[in-house]
Amino acid sequence: MSRPPGRKQENHKISGELFVLTYGALVAQLCKDYEKDEDVNTCLDRMGYGIGVRLIDDFLARSAVKKCRSYSETADMIAQVAFKMYLGITPTVSCSSAAGNEFSLILDKNPLVDFVEELPAERASLCYCNLLCGVIRGALEMVHLPAEVTFLQDRLKGDAVTEIGITFLRKSEDRKHRRNK
Amino acid sequence: MSRPPGRKQENHKISGELFVLTYGALVAQLCKDYEKDEDVNTCLDRMGYGIGVRLIDDFLARSAVKKCRSYSETADMIAQVAFKMYLGITPTVSCSSAAGNEFSLILDKNPLVDFVEELPAERASLCYCNLLCGVIRGALEMVHLPAEVTFLQDRLKGDAVTEIGITFLRKSEDRKHRRNK
Repeated sequence: MSRPPGRKQENHKISGELFVLTYGALVAQLCKDYEKDEDVNTCLDRMGYGIGVRLIDDFLARSAVKKCRSYSETADMIAQVAFKMYLGITPTVSCSSAAGNEFSLILDKNPLVDFVEELPAERASLCYCNLLCGVIRGALEMVHLPAEVTFLQDRLKGDAVTEIGITFLRKSEDRKHRRNK
Repeated sequence: MSRPPGRKQENHKISGELFVLTYGALVAQLCKDYEKDEDVNTCLDRMGYGIGVRLIDDFLARSAVKKCRSYSETADMIAQVAFKMYLGITPTVSCSSAAGNEFSLILDKNPLVDFVEELPAERASLCYCNLLCGVIRGALEMVHLPAEVTFLQDRLKGDAVTEIGITFLRKSEDRKHRRNK
């Protein structure tokens, strides 16, 4: 994929706090707009998807990564390159299925919740960072890797860590087969 | 002002594209929520104000700047330190009043509109980046410098540059007088 002509490829780095607070304003607005947590979660995921679809182009241009040869490499790339680039953190990756298509990203810290004390009692089902799932899903789809991406654990909900689950929907064998054609 | 205890002061830098796209999603959501551009502008300004009120603490801790001795120094600080830190750009500052309380920040480029082609025809009065005005206003108010902050020119609306006007509301003499008390 290429950058549209005329767009400069700049590499300026910024401190993330304005982003983190702006994200908080977005979630707060959606909580005003939708009564049900599930609707907020769906909306954040959908917004994230739209962002991922556009962000992948920037990611590929900026990271100059080569094609990943396995789901495992792809998961590592998301954690070590993409998270580092856009959120300044590097989650730990673990594979959680024998089939080799399910992975977990474990976030020891999550800058997106830096200014959040805890979820209000009436918002107990809110997936505050659900935008991230959508971003990953959208970006993966653009490189022909359809996946399900959801929060499996969330420190904001009292879990010990924050864990994002990625399940690649196509079997690894399908991919190899396609590649060898 | 001090950071709340227990919050770590980290200094990781990130690429701004995820922020820019997330900001776009926020503006798009507000455009869904409010029919009138003026209401979207007001909402962005109000959100920004809330962000500025919280961000100033991070800014003071991170930049370790000393107290500014004049409005001119304050305007330079906003452009050269704050904009650089949070948006990765350094606007040009000019003083636009004999009284010395009106300044313009000229943005040759504006990363927040990186992914925006142009405003839709039905959104001609939208101040797309109005959040920034609120952020500046909120942050200034927390250091006892009440100000009016508005977009005077906007490239998205066909102007040659993007210009943010800051009018400090207290006379310079008032400030000196207070300082000497």
